[in-house]
Amino acid sequence: MKKARHSDSLLFEPRNPDYANQVREAFEGQPMLRSLGVELFLIEPGYCELHLPYRQAISQNHGYFHGGAISTLADVSGGFAGWSLLPEGMWIVTVEYKTNIIAPGRGEKLIGRGRVVRSGRSLTTTEIEVLAVDRGQERLCATALQTLMAVEANPT
Amino acid sequence: MKKARHSDSLLFEPRNPDYANQVREAFEGQPMLRSLGVELFLIEPGYCELHLPYRQAISQNHGYFHGGAISTLADVSGGFAGWSLLPEGMWIVTVEYKTNIIAPGRGEKLIGRGRVVRSGRSLTTTEIEVLAVDRGQERLCATALQTLMAVEANPT
Amino acid sequence: MKKARHSDSLLFEPRNPDYANQVREAFEGQPMLRSLGVELFLIEPGYCELHLPYRQAISQNHGYFHGGAISTLADVSGGFAGWSLLPEGMWIVTVEYKTNIIAPGRGEKLIGRGRVVRSGRSLTTTEIEVLAVDRGQERLCATALQTLMAVEANPT
Amino acid sequence: MKKARHSDSLLFEPRNPDYANQVREAFEGQPMLRSLGVELFLIEPGYCELHLPYRQAISQNHGYFHGGAISTLADVSGGFAGWSLLPEGMWIVTVEYKTNIIAPGRGEKLIGRGRVVRSGRSLTTTEIEVLAVDRGQERLCATALQTLMAVEANPT
Repeated sequence: MKKARHSDSLLFEPRNPDYANQVREAFEGQPMLRSLGVELFLIEPGYCELHLPYRQAISQNHGYFHGGAISTLADVSGGFAGWSLLPEGMWIVTVEYKTNIIAPGRGEKLIGRGRVVRSGRSLTTTEIEVLAVDRGQERLCATALQTLMAVEANPT
Repeated sequence: MKKARHSDSLLFEPRNPDYANQVREAFEGQPMLRSLGVELFLIEPGYCELHLPYRQAISQNHGYFHGGAISTLADVSGGFAGWSLLPEGMWIVTVEYKTNIIAPGRGEKLIGRGRVVRSGRSLTTTEIEVLAVDRGQERLCATALQTLMAVEANPT
Repeated sequence: MKKARHSDSLLFEPRNPDYANQVREAFEGQPMLRSLGVELFLIEPGYCELHLPYRQAISQNHGYFHGGAISTLADVSGGFAGWSLLPEGMWIVTVEYKTNIIAPGRGEKLIGRGRVVRSGRSLTTTEIEVLAVDRGQERLCATALQTLMAVEANPT
Repeated sequence: MKKARHSDSLLFEPRNPDYANQVREAFEGQPMLRSLGVELFLIEPGYCELHLPYRQAISQNHGYFHGGAISTLADVSGGFAGWSLLPEGMWIVTVEYKTNIIAPGRGEKLIGRGRVVRSGRSLTTTEIEVLAVDRGQERLCATALQTLMAVEANPT
């Protein structure tokens, strides 16, 4: 199974030189990610890789990763990829996304890789793949396509 | 906001007279749903309503329901709606789904309503809406479109 | 098959009292729709119904309506539904949409019904169903979910 | 803009050694593609590239390629990519697909590139990109994600 799809990512210029900290803060501000056990593995301009170790608490009927864990990982991998290209003080919200579950989420870890396809002023498009790592072997588990929107940080 | 979309559901004949127990078992066999706190509220042939009370552990940066909780609820609401029409001993897996986040998941509870649009031999199509209940007021939070596939129960 | 889904549409206030003419002009400005033979049947605030009579020129291998005709009809039915709620002088572009093909496009006519689910300042969400009319019998052929964006009329 | 995404495609073994002719026949059997002017440029196992020269008859309000032409090209590029991996005598139907319109379809030609991500017994998943060629410059215009199903050739 091809794994290199994101390694040859588009090159993006971050609009905020401190983009990595901005994403890290956003990541740490989401209690749901801590509850699931998501780990921020790599953030680059327009790219984000997240890891999610297996726990029975996030499994489904066969003991594999639950689809909800898979799609949440897809959503936030794309979301933080988009977030890395935002000007300081802006936030990202998900407008919509679509996930194709390609194979069961079997194994000891999920890897989510989000990549920005297009970064516009208001809207950002990302592609995401989720890999399941089973005894060290990576296998494509899901592929997703996502639309994000930049918003002011405090839309209250 | 229109709430009646699913009340006038299509009428489906369940292929398993004990469909409600079959769904309940499938529901209880998914540890992820227990971790999130999802409650099975109503199951009818081709229809499923799930509730998800708010907890900080499943929130995002603004303290609202996390997108991952919203889309997981959408996924399983549609999934169990499809499951209710299966012959005994068959299982449902999600092939793909797409979620549009219409409004923030703000409030004390999410309600997921999945409805079968078409039930084929192999594939099932569902529509789902997720409502956020804020101080008793329901508001459309997300709408989703999903493809499910029936599989043998033990595909090992 | 349920047909009433859109009859009980949400009630929207048009921001342009002359919305019907605005949509008609937009419709007539699209040569592709004339090439296909699409007819504007009904436009209301937040709702649009288009018809597409069968011709062999828009068919596929079995002589049914081609999937491209079905999804184009879905796209523009939703697009004009959104357009009907725009302020004067604004235009709609499709950000993305997803179509589930439920049944073959068999028959003498396709009917596309687009309905606005949410109309925001920038983004609009619509749901669309496409019916195939076969010897007078309507049958659900496709269901779609769409994101639109309002833009200035002359973004050159 | 990255163009190489599909050049490093997954390697698939065709199940029908005469796959290229099988696809060509399917292509020629679709009157809608002739009406639009779609050209079969390249077919390989799990990969298909189609071209669509500009004509005013398939344009929208600004004179660019109509969204219906863009998404039809996406649909069939993915469809024939999947078709190339079928056993002899099987056919492909589109279950669903989602298209993100990234940029206007401006220029003298559209190029659709469909690539199989996963080829199962019943279901196939594809990714598609549509490029607009404007005075010789390629630009990503749309990206799509698609589910296909293999069926018997004559399901009448």
